[in-house]
Amino acid sequence: MADTDVALNETPANASDNPLTAVDPFPASAKIYVPGTLHADVRVPMREISLTPVTTNDGAKPQVDPPVTVYDVSGPYTDPAATIDLRRGLPPVRLDWIKARSDTETYEGRTVLPNDNGYATDDQLEVERFPTASRRAARRAKPGANVSQMHYARKGIITPEMEFVAIRENQRREQVADIAQQHPGEDFGAAIPKIITPEFVRDEVARGRAIIPANINHPEAEPMIIGRNFLVKINSNIGNSAVSSSIEEEVEKMIWSTRWGADTVMDLSTGKNIHETREWIIRNSPVPIGTVPIYQALEKVEGKPEELTWELFRDTLIEQAEQGVDYFTIHAGVLLRYVPMTAKRVTGIVSRGGSILAKWCLAHHKENFLYTNFEETCEIMRTYDVAFSLGDGLRPGSIADANDAAQFAELDTLGELTKIAWQHDVQTIIEGPGHVPMHMIKENMDRQLEACGEAPFYTLGPLTTDIAPGYDHITSAIGAAMIGWYGTAMLCYVTPKEHLGLPDRQDVKDGVIAYKIAAHAADLAKGHPGAQHHDNAISKARFEFRWDDQFNLGLAPDTARDFHDATLPQDGAKAAHFCSMCGPQFCSMKITQDVRDYAAAHGIGETEAVEAGMAEKSDEFVKTGAEIYKKV
Amino acid sequence: MADTDVALNETPANASDNPLTAVDPFPASAKIYVPGTLHADVRVPMREISLTPVTTNDGAKPQVDPPVTVYDVSGPYTDPAATIDLRRGLPPVRLDWIKARSDTETYEGRTVLPNDNGYATDDQLEVERFPTASRRAARRAKPGANVSQMHYARKGIITPEMEFVAIRENQRREQVADIAQQHPGEDFGAAIPKIITPEFVRDEVARGRAIIPANINHPEAEPMIIGRNFLVKINSNIGNSAVSSSIEEEVEKMIWSTRWGADTVMDLSTGKNIHETREWIIRNSPVPIGTVPIYQALEKVEGKPEELTWELFRDTLIEQAEQGVDYFTIHAGVLLRYVPMTAKRVTGIVSRGGSILAKWCLAHHKENFLYTNFEETCEIMRTYDVAFSLGDGLRPGSIADANDAAQFAELDTLGELTKIAWQHDVQTIIEGPGHVPMHMIKENMDRQLEACGEAPFYTLGPLTTDIAPGYDHITSAIGAAMIGWYGTAMLCYVTPKEHLGLPDRQDVKDGVIAYKIAAHAADLAKGHPGAQHHDNAISKARFEFRWDDQFNLGLAPDTARDFHDATLPQDGAKAAHFCSMCGPQFCSMKITQDVRDYAAAHGIGETEAVEAGMAEKSDEFVKTGAEIYKKV
Repeated sequence: MADTDVALNETPANASDNPLTAVDPFPASAKIYVPGTLHADVRVPMREISLTPVTTNDGAKPQVDPPVTVYDVSGPYTDPAATIDLRRGLPPVRLDWIKARSDTETYEGRTVLPNDNGYATDDQLEVERFPTASRRAARRAKPGANVSQMHYARKGIITPEMEFVAIRENQRREQVADIAQQHPGEDFGAAIPKIITPEFVRDEVARGRAIIPANINHPEAEPMIIGRNFLVKINSNIGNSAVSSSIEEEVEKMIWSTRWGADTVMDLSTGKNIHETREWIIRNSPVPIGTVPIYQALEKVEGKPEELTWELFRDTLIEQAEQGVDYFTIHAGVLLRYVPMTAKRVTGIVSRGGSILAKWCLAHHKENFLYTNFEETCEIMRTYDVAFSLGDGLRPGSIADANDAAQFAELDTLGELTKIAWQHDVQTIIEGPGHVPMHMIKENMDRQLEACGEAPFYTLGPLTTDIAPGYDHITSAIGAAMIGWYGTAMLCYVTPKEHLGLPDRQDVKDGVIAYKIAAHAADLAKGHPGAQHHDNAISKARFEFRWDDQFNLGLAPDTARDFHDATLPQDGAKAAHFCSMCGPQFCSMKITQDVRDYAAAHGIGETEAVEAGMAEKSDEFVKTGAEIYKKV
Repeated sequence: MADTDVALNETPANASDNPLTAVDPFPASAKIYVPGTLHADVRVPMREISLTPVTTNDGAKPQVDPPVTVYDVSGPYTDPAATIDLRRGLPPVRLDWIKARSDTETYEGRTVLPNDNGYATDDQLEVERFPTASRRAARRAKPGANVSQMHYARKGIITPEMEFVAIRENQRREQVADIAQQHPGEDFGAAIPKIITPEFVRDEVARGRAIIPANINHPEAEPMIIGRNFLVKINSNIGNSAVSSSIEEEVEKMIWSTRWGADTVMDLSTGKNIHETREWIIRNSPVPIGTVPIYQALEKVEGKPEELTWELFRDTLIEQAEQGVDYFTIHAGVLLRYVPMTAKRVTGIVSRGGSILAKWCLAHHKENFLYTNFEETCEIMRTYDVAFSLGDGLRPGSIADANDAAQFAELDTLGELTKIAWQHDVQTIIEGPGHVPMHMIKENMDRQLEACGEAPFYTLGPLTTDIAPGYDHITSAIGAAMIGWYGTAMLCYVTPKEHLGLPDRQDVKDGVIAYKIAAHAADLAKGHPGAQHHDNAISKARFEFRWDDQFNLGLAPDTARDFHDATLPQDGAKAAHFCSMCGPQFCSMKITQDVRDYAAAHGIGETEAVEAGMAEKSDEFVKTGAEIYKKV
């Protein structure tokens, strides 16, 4: 198949000619790379949005505000200078760093079996294989070595990955004039510094308060960090299923997710072709990839949980670790004694992983084999630097079941397991609910921090009501924003199709944007230094009628522009000092500008004006300001 | 025009043949009317959703859960027994009650002037006039009388309107078995009773903690209540504008809004044809209608705020009160001395009403004429029972401007005005922001309660970030849910087009649904008795694979069904015990059912199971439960 190795975007005359539709730079945006200082080959991608001049009616020289830098997870796909070739995969930006540490070795790796893809024989595979010529040998820690970022951090080493994320988190905030001009936040005991230093990153990773998911077999990923003292992150889920979807769609979905801001992507594929689908996704992913290995293990036993064994599961972990999965959801907290606690629930066990393990436990009347083999799992994790995402298999699936005994019993066990993982220097995050009414959300955060020693929390929503199928990106964005504020480090997105079907492109975009909103609202509420700069820039553009800037600074520039054009399609309207809400005759923003000009011209500050007699000034105002409506 | 008096839905063979597309009953729903006991002619509409049988694999007799009653603001439009005729208007359900009080009189009313519609002469009107034959004479309080619901309440009278809302608020919760089976809420000092009695309604209205917007000239409206101790309500905005839209569109938008759950509708029209548009809307509206009278007043002076006068404004109030507007937004708190406080803001004054008054104050160097004539305004309000919605003209239009001195100075003034309104027994609510980061929302609620003596709060959002134009229904639903939880009585919706353009049908629906979610999430968090019943019903349906019930119980049944069918269109899939997320081979819900059946069959409760030895049971489980995957 190597002869079909064609660059998909060789001649993208325009976006619609491009089979990979997610490949398209953002408007008015430049991809910039900020270099490291400790590590010269660190180049941190950011997106710089340039602004348009402020137009005035008085003929003054137009002024242009400095460009706005935003966090950019879209990888080379939005870099016009990059050549994208899905059959080659992305450049392995981390490979030299990994090699330079001299604690890893390449090896032949596990033989990929037909059953890894759900078939009896290899020739039944329904998808194109990732080209052999593009494959790298598997890599693992040398015997006795531990290659986790946590291990390096605890040894006092600032890795290139750590410097990368420090630069990335700052978003050049040291250059932003209005960092100080933002509301002080309420961070509920977090410890967010003004400027993120590489040493701070190291310290947080060493303590376990943050993780850098970075499998040594996924060198294509641009490092990122998940922790309460960093920007709140979001995850999007993709995955084929027994019912529909294809590899091309899934790779595209991953790229599409990252375009809109997914910081990590979980591949939740079930059914056939799983191994090969994952290979395509990882080789082309600029963000960490997570999986739930029990899904694939279950496929290997034809969907019969009771036939699962530790040996089969262990083999699956190695299979996926060699491919480069950055974090594994492991439902090791679903203990035998907790399962009957769910019997009286309205919606029982809704986690797929949780129910698989519950069934296994009951069928065998044995303790969960993920729990009993946890130490050995840790050894695998540290060999590749795969992070634990300890799954909440007993999370509530309805408002009624929120915060019950089963859920919190499991959470306590996840706390115990966290401490074991940390003994092995294995990076760990904890998964959380689910469906929780607003007033019960904070208890989840507080108990997680307490039970799990501040290991990062990674929550699905939570959905704050059950009654809106078709709109669960919204029911859950409410809960996600709140739990993000309270301290959750990463929010797992929910799309409008939740509970109903498989998300399409629009659903993925809407889900990611809803969660970018939740994450950013949380950053603002926590008082994350520099977070408000983006809001200030877009609001200033709005106030000054810089329509293009308002679109371009938005989370979804195309949507904002389309919505504006639906009412006022003329190009002139985007330079107009009015909008469709009020029409040309009247605009509140314009009046406010008059008030401001007036106050400024007369040296009226906030307090002086209250005292000042303004009678003599009112005539002048009528002459200067009150004419504005006639000019339009 | 009376000869064109045709019933629009005379022969609606199906929804698409019907020019009034909002007229269509909800699936599996019956319109029921619950009678009053104090007042025999009170008939309170509710929607009863019937459920499908629970299917099982064991051949047991199918069981059907009782129907679920939901709050229904859609009026006669969703009643198959009703004849809809937009040219006749809705039946005046309240007219007999108003007449029976014998404290009102009909009169000729103000002559409608061409300028009320923005024209120099009558024949320039671009829209069909509401038929003369369908018009009722204007009605007002007899000299010296006060016809406000607050006035009756303070005299100890339980009006039919009060009994109506008591029945409506309860949603037959006394029949619901699981009222007690819901989470206790956190209501931040609200006083929500288990069952709402007519006397409780009277007492809350008398105290000013709730209002029943009920202009005596809008007898078509079905009474509803706005107050912290009742269900959280939502408002949708409609309105033509100088740029686009038509009367038909606006009437349709009103009906469409109420279909999805808007408890009140504000007509924010500007430009021409305002009076006639409003007539059509009010005559056909089953919900209270609010306006911002200064918008129309400004049209009458050709958009020049400085030419506004109290006399012109007063005349506009009477014009609209005679038509039947139920509440007026009055920006009487924009005081001259507060205006310069906005000069240093990022987005100045973003309220249109606020900026009109600010401009007027500065131009004349006089105090806001709405403030100086507030007592006389109260006299108009009580003559028709129009409620005040005291506008927050200085609300923040960006995160940067949240909770500033100008905003809170105005709030304090609104508190003073509330007390004056209450001296006249005029019902009053207070408008609130705007753009506010999450951690600063509660301060708004707390200060409002304190400053305004617990008068109901009515907020726009608030938006919790500025960076997502095109998705502001989501940025604001987050803030709306939170402030609703904290005690806000009504949430003013925001559509995806906010800041960008005029909402179309899909935007209106998406905005209303987003706000129904926020309001219900708030009800759940407050622990509103019975609120969780709806969630429990839909979650039980979800768990039992009753797909049709899950759709029908959702806020948007059509959307939920469409989303499901996008992946699995076959009719059979809606009876299937699996869904597209997991496919037929594997389903977590199904596994949970097995766990439950198993626990139930063996008498294992939550605690006993933990103790019980389960080894001997595991064999049986393998025999009975573990087979389920083969059957599918």
